[in-house]
Amino acid sequence: MSDLTGKIVLGPHQYGKAENRVVRIYRDGDRHEIRDLNVSSCLRGAFDEAHTSGDQGAVLPTDSQKQTIYSYAKEHGDGSIEEYGLALARHFVDDVEPVESARIEIEEYAWQRVPVNGQGHDHTWTRIGPEIRTAAITVGGKAPGQREWVIGGVKDLVILKSTGSEFASFLEDPYTVLQPTHDRILATSLSARWRFAAPPADWDAAYSGIRAVMIEKFATEHSKALQQTLFDMGAAALEAFPRLAEIRLSAPNKHHWFFDLSRFGVENRNEVFHADDRPYGLIQASVLREDAPDPGTAWDPYTGAV
Amino acid sequence: MSDLTGKIVLGPHQYGKAENRVVRIYRDGDRHEIRDLNVSSCLRGAFDEAHTSGDQGAVLPTDSQKQTIYSYAKEHGDGSIEEYGLALARHFVDDVEPVESARIEIEEYAWQRVPVNGQGHDHTWTRIGPEIRTAAITVGGKAPGQREWVIGGVKDLVILKSTGSEFASFLEDPYTVLQPTHDRILATSLSARWRFAAPPADWDAAYSGIRAVMIEKFATEHSKALQQTLFDMGAAALEAFPRLAEIRLSAPNKHHWFFDLSRFGVENRNEVFHADDRPYGLIQASVLREDAPDPGTAWDPYTGAV
Amino acid sequence: MSDLTGKIVLGPHQYGKAENRVVRIYRDGDRHEIRDLNVSSCLRGAFDEAHTSGDQGAVLPTDSQKQTIYSYAKEHGDGSIEEYGLALARHFVDDVEPVESARIEIEEYAWQRVPVNGQGHDHTWTRIGPEIRTAAITVGGKAPGQREWVIGGVKDLVILKSTGSEFASFLEDPYTVLQPTHDRILATSLSARWRFAAPPADWDAAYSGIRAVMIEKFATEHSKALQQTLFDMGAAALEAFPRLAEIRLSAPNKHHWFFDLSRFGVENRNEVFHADDRPYGLIQASVLREDAPDPGTAWDPYTGAV
Amino acid sequence: MSDLTGKIVLGPHQYGKAENRVVRIYRDGDRHEIRDLNVSSCLRGAFDEAHTSGDQGAVLPTDSQKQTIYSYAKEHGDGSIEEYGLALARHFVDDVEPVESARIEIEEYAWQRVPVNGQGHDHTWTRIGPEIRTAAITVGGKAPGQREWVIGGVKDLVILKSTGSEFASFLEDPYTVLQPTHDRILATSLSARWRFAAPPADWDAAYSGIRAVMIEKFATEHSKALQQTLFDMGAAALEAFPRLAEIRLSAPNKHHWFFDLSRFGVENRNEVFHADDRPYGLIQASVLREDAPDPGTAWDPYTGAV
Repeated sequence: MSDLTGKIVLGPHQYGKAENRVVRIYRDGDRHEIRDLNVSSCLRGAFDEAHTSGDQGAVLPTDSQKQTIYSYAKEHGDGSIEEYGLALARHFVDDVEPVESARIEIEEYAWQRVPVNGQGHDHTWTRIGPEIRTAAITVGGKAPGQREWVIGGVKDLVILKSTGSEFASFLEDPYTVLQPTHDRILATSLSARWRFAAPPADWDAAYSGIRAVMIEKFATEHSKALQQTLFDMGAAALEAFPRLAEIRLSAPNKHHWFFDLSRFGVENRNEVFHADDRPYGLIQASVLREDAPDPGTAWDPYTGAV
Repeated sequence: MSDLTGKIVLGPHQYGKAENRVVRIYRDGDRHEIRDLNVSSCLRGAFDEAHTSGDQGAVLPTDSQKQTIYSYAKEHGDGSIEEYGLALARHFVDDVEPVESARIEIEEYAWQRVPVNGQGHDHTWTRIGPEIRTAAITVGGKAPGQREWVIGGVKDLVILKSTGSEFASFLEDPYTVLQPTHDRILATSLSARWRFAAPPADWDAAYSGIRAVMIEKFATEHSKALQQTLFDMGAAALEAFPRLAEIRLSAPNKHHWFFDLSRFGVENRNEVFHADDRPYGLIQASVLREDAPDPGTAWDPYTGAV
Repeated sequence: MSDLTGKIVLGPHQYGKAENRVVRIYRDGDRHEIRDLNVSSCLRGAFDEAHTSGDQGAVLPTDSQKQTIYSYAKEHGDGSIEEYGLALARHFVDDVEPVESARIEIEEYAWQRVPVNGQGHDHTWTRIGPEIRTAAITVGGKAPGQREWVIGGVKDLVILKSTGSEFASFLEDPYTVLQPTHDRILATSLSARWRFAAPPADWDAAYSGIRAVMIEKFATEHSKALQQTLFDMGAAALEAFPRLAEIRLSAPNKHHWFFDLSRFGVENRNEVFHADDRPYGLIQASVLREDAPDPGTAWDPYTGAV
Repeated sequence: MSDLTGKIVLGPHQYGKAENRVVRIYRDGDRHEIRDLNVSSCLRGAFDEAHTSGDQGAVLPTDSQKQTIYSYAKEHGDGSIEEYGLALARHFVDDVEPVESARIEIEEYAWQRVPVNGQGHDHTWTRIGPEIRTAAITVGGKAPGQREWVIGGVKDLVILKSTGSEFASFLEDPYTVLQPTHDRILATSLSARWRFAAPPADWDAAYSGIRAVMIEKFATEHSKALQQTLFDMGAAALEAFPRLAEIRLSAPNKHHWFFDLSRFGVENRNEVFHADDRPYGLIQASVLREDAPDPGTAWDPYTGAV
């Protein structure tokens, strides 16, 4: 094959302010509420000149985006992260001329009220995790043809079952030395993202419900493989929430290796394991409705891109 | 001052196997239990020759320590991390001739049963955090003069109050530009470690109780400074648990900066903050009983040491 | 909008063994060589039954993939990461029946010979970083229609210039408070990935050359914005290496804020800065040849997906 | 053993501003210099009332310490990190009345000039690492009895030798299954800290020299165990730099496990290894001169404490 000789041109490009750590306190009475967010804005549009000639005339500074993100936490930040993200994305597309599309990515960290005398305290919380709620909102095009996509999700949801999982009857090749097992630990750190075909009645309730349905499926279904478990978790979420068009799951198989104690005269009846770091199996799948609408640019990433 | 000319000699030394990721499942019936641990062993003793001549004759391999750690998870791992650590440390001192002192450091990761039909599931959990329970057990000397020290603790306990905190009337110098504040967010990621003068009736209950007392104090006491809050948290723990001799606290002041929205015509009534990463204030203090017994080598570190 | 009622089906799916930490020593004489790799394998193909019914008959275990990765480090690992990745990807597609496409992602960590008496030592190195060389190889389809795509890259390349950078004449909106600057620090932690239209004569030389061209452009060109710098770095790489079809760049603007010392009577002539963590501008762009061949699935991610 | 009843009192305490990310550019001509630092200040003294009653009258805000750190980067930051740290520590003790002792901990990140036309560029650098230079300066007491201690160091120095290392003839117990080896990879991520008995002629030259001596010893000496290698590295540094009183080394044994390929008919002549993450051996030792002066509080930690 020979060298390329075509003209060198700018391809797709986007920019914004990543990882704004917004903490929003609601203090309309003695009982406060908290939302703890990591917000990234991403603008797409007519910014070619900034790249090709250095002309910044069409470039809204990322600092201005940051100011907007914090200000909108007061102006429009009184609900779910999906609604807050929609307000921000609409603003950038509608109010900033060169912007053709905006994407807002949000992580939300969970807090739990501190128990005092058996009651949750009014204004003190501890962080709970490691799991993180996520959202990615895209608003594309100026009105009247404007479109909106909302993706919700969870990541770093670490879940483990100590029985009810097997892995056997797999394909073997000359490099296969793994033995089948009919009782193992199954554990993962789940990332899941779901695309809404239409807004649910309550974004926060949808998040809690989808999360609960997936966890319950993981717990109660006997697993022949992580692949099967993931598909059934996704299908259960779609079944329970018909506003969902699609769900994408990424799950490392966090290996817990049986530790051989027999050489020390100690019997290990699937009681002692080594939790290994690397390598790990990594399984990814999407589950969707056949009548799912066109995803458009809903899945085009920002902070995880390249 | 002149150069040193004295003989070059070996100083204090210690070694072991760090970060053994032990997962212990208790499965005596349908309802399983889980303990998820990160265990480090550290041996001190007559290992000079390994350093000065390369003679390994007195050196128990770190792999042997690892095997012991996993085996003891079955042989002696049916209780709290403090009891498991004591069993390990006693073993290394009592059963391995050159070992004069052993230290076991343990992190325990918390898991919560998955709710299914309103009940906690028998064998499925999700990880909760970020906080981590810790223990550091030291057994020093062969019998009959053997001594034992147990330190319990918690780290990465992220706690925040949205009001009830001030910082004012501080010392000013020519580099002081900070303005006093009478209503701010107070947040930290607490590390606390407590030394037992005598074993409590129930190690797990002691952990839960000490943690609860400290959190409640953080929530309910008006704070004039993080310094005051830390001391009072420690004092409350000692007061409630008279088996405790001492508690050491280390607390980054996780700054949440008020975000000025007035220039956009938006009023921010302590509702929108930027959670900053670095730098951060870092406050450390110990609180102790005047009749606390000699700590000996209880606090001498292993995995955190340089 | 109404609920979806379509059948729930499996969408795109893939799986493999992620983050195999392979260290390959070449020791054919006294002078050893080292390659230190993090290798992930990803298989795409007829694995639907594993998800939908739990039948693993078409699933080659991720453990078998791991064994292959380590074995191929000896069998085929005597060259660049691009060649090693091609050998692995071809193997999985050609030799494992249900596999329709394979992707191999590799990170390579750099080591430098230790100087001893002014010479690089034969078998001792120190790690240099933080930058990491990357490759992503995709082999799609069984012969004769088989296609191959090779992406090389670098990530975590932290680069800074202390002058020769400005940012001014930008778009302003009501949330714009940023002041223009005509002399600032410009710093980023660059991720760049480049797609080859055809194999270069020497993969290792191509890596070094592309990296050098980009760095030189960053250093020598006056920057009106990070956008401009990125485009010109990419264009310079394409210009110098006509086997390249496209380059994608992702660059956080690592802000270094001027620190106001005037209130202490100290003049700061762009000498003292605070290196801030978050938030940061994040600029992404691709630069390509107009005659670049179809990328096919070259950019479809694995370990960074979801 | 009975409960404690003694009075609850404040023990040792300290506070400061941690992790100030100072970047200092020297731009007296066209050829700039850069120092990239992470600076933490720690004050010890008469701050009891802040803890016990909330009275902040003796507490210099951590924000004031931060302002001082950045201002001193201009006022006194024109040399090594040891000199800069000494200036800061002396200031806090001498100029802030309640301060009895100050400790400054500094990390320095290394940068390398970008090559352009075979020359290092005037004002552009890339970061090199992962190794980090460290310093910890303590100034104790008001004049005339004031004392000073300087500790230099390096951390995250990752070094590997592919032969010239064995581990055999070790102590065996019932849990010993490890086989002796006479040719293995030896690798560590070294942390070393050295205490000066008197200032060297040139702090920067001392750092480079100590680092070089240790690395050369690691490379050239046949290792019977990591213990031996560490002691001899420390002894070599003390021998070469008679201003050093003591050196403390902490070294994880980064295990590289031989990968068995024989079952695939492939011969592995110590060429293919798996670099394991956890657990790891962790060896710690100090090496010192018999006439080393009293360390006082030189080693009392701040940011790594608790």
